[in-house]
Amino acid sequence: MSVIAEISIFPMGASGSLAPYVAKAVDIIRSSGLPFLLGPMGTCVEGDWSEVMAVVDLCFKALAADQDRVYMTLKVDWRAGRVGGLASKTRSVESQLGSAP
Amino acid sequence: MSVIAEISIFPMGASGSLAPYVAKAVDIIRSSGLPFLLGPMGTCVEGDWSEVMAVVDLCFKALAADQDRVYMTLKVDWRAGRVGGLASKTRSVESQLGSAP
Amino acid sequence: MSVIAEISIFPMGASGSLAPYVAKAVDIIRSSGLPFLLGPMGTCVEGDWSEVMAVVDLCFKALAADQDRVYMTLKVDWRAGRVGGLASKTRSVESQLGSAP
Amino acid sequence: MSVIAEISIFPMGASGSLAPYVAKAVDIIRSSGLPFLLGPMGTCVEGDWSEVMAVVDLCFKALAADQDRVYMTLKVDWRAGRVGGLASKTRSVESQLGSAP
Repeated sequence: MSVIAEISIFPMGASGSLAPYVAKAVDIIRSSGLPFLLGPMGTCVEGDWSEVMAVVDLCFKALAADQDRVYMTLKVDWRAGRVGGLASKTRSVESQLGSAP
Repeated sequence: MSVIAEISIFPMGASGSLAPYVAKAVDIIRSSGLPFLLGPMGTCVEGDWSEVMAVVDLCFKALAADQDRVYMTLKVDWRAGRVGGLASKTRSVESQLGSAP
Repeated sequence: MSVIAEISIFPMGASGSLAPYVAKAVDIIRSSGLPFLLGPMGTCVEGDWSEVMAVVDLCFKALAADQDRVYMTLKVDWRAGRVGGLASKTRSVESQLGSAP
Repeated sequence: MSVIAEISIFPMGASGSLAPYVAKAVDIIRSSGLPFLLGPMGTCVEGDWSEVMAVVDLCFKALAADQDRVYMTLKVDWRAGRVGGLASKTRSVESQLGSAP
């Protein structure tokens, strides 16, 4: 449970809203059973490295299946032994707001 | 109000939690008065291009002020005429979950 | 000269090759007179923070001028006092290849 | 051979040069036999999706093996049927420099 990855994936060359494509990826992430958080610029998912990468693999293949070009950015933060980081990372920032040195 | 930018910024070489540094940036983003959303892998802020870039500029300078090395990633999605995208982007994905083609 | 930024910028919804749009951005980067390096996934440019951000600003505005939607990712590495990092960063990695601990 | 991925990976909290860590990843990428290109902000590697992701997997595990925290960003551009994109992407931009509309 020590990897948090933010996945942003979309077909290039698709006109109009990207929501249907993003929904396809989020459906896959949700089906994995891993904790996740949908955001405006990407979806964060938390798990072991191999679990998270298995989800990334499925998302990519689902979008590539009926597209000519797919763009993906992935940000990964791995911290040994971290648990529940999806919530704790923002909480620990929030607790320090207004008290920055 | 048509730019959404996700800012991830931290000093390199800092050991321990990055929360104090992230809080410094989030304090600046909050002071801007622009709509923002704190996430586990970055903070999204919405506004006009020049407003958003002014905030990015302040965040970078605040962190660089007392560090030797700073790393920042920025993801920008600009869509002409979009308003309230911080909420509407995730809402429009959520409305399509479970119905992906 | 201590900031290296990698700029990746393209219109969303454009079909076919993105080369004309990327060329537009690279023309602007080249006109700045700053050292730069064109790569397969982005263009690196080196300078002071304000110089680099002025170039980013021009690139964004040039692409947004006749598009409905633009996507940009920016990776920034700032190291106090670094000069000539565009070449030295890869050189210092190359000098250590094959000797990793 | 239709995926190009740019890998940027480093331990967080490491002080001094990151070159030894980057060299470790580049050694792995080089051993894969896939075409690659070392850049100032990341290393691009080209291959099939599964080949490229196998390399990413090895790089991550090598760095995580003796660190407490690892940060990675990955940019992926997949285009059906593209061959030799590592060279052709920059060449096709270069051929259009100075002629932007």
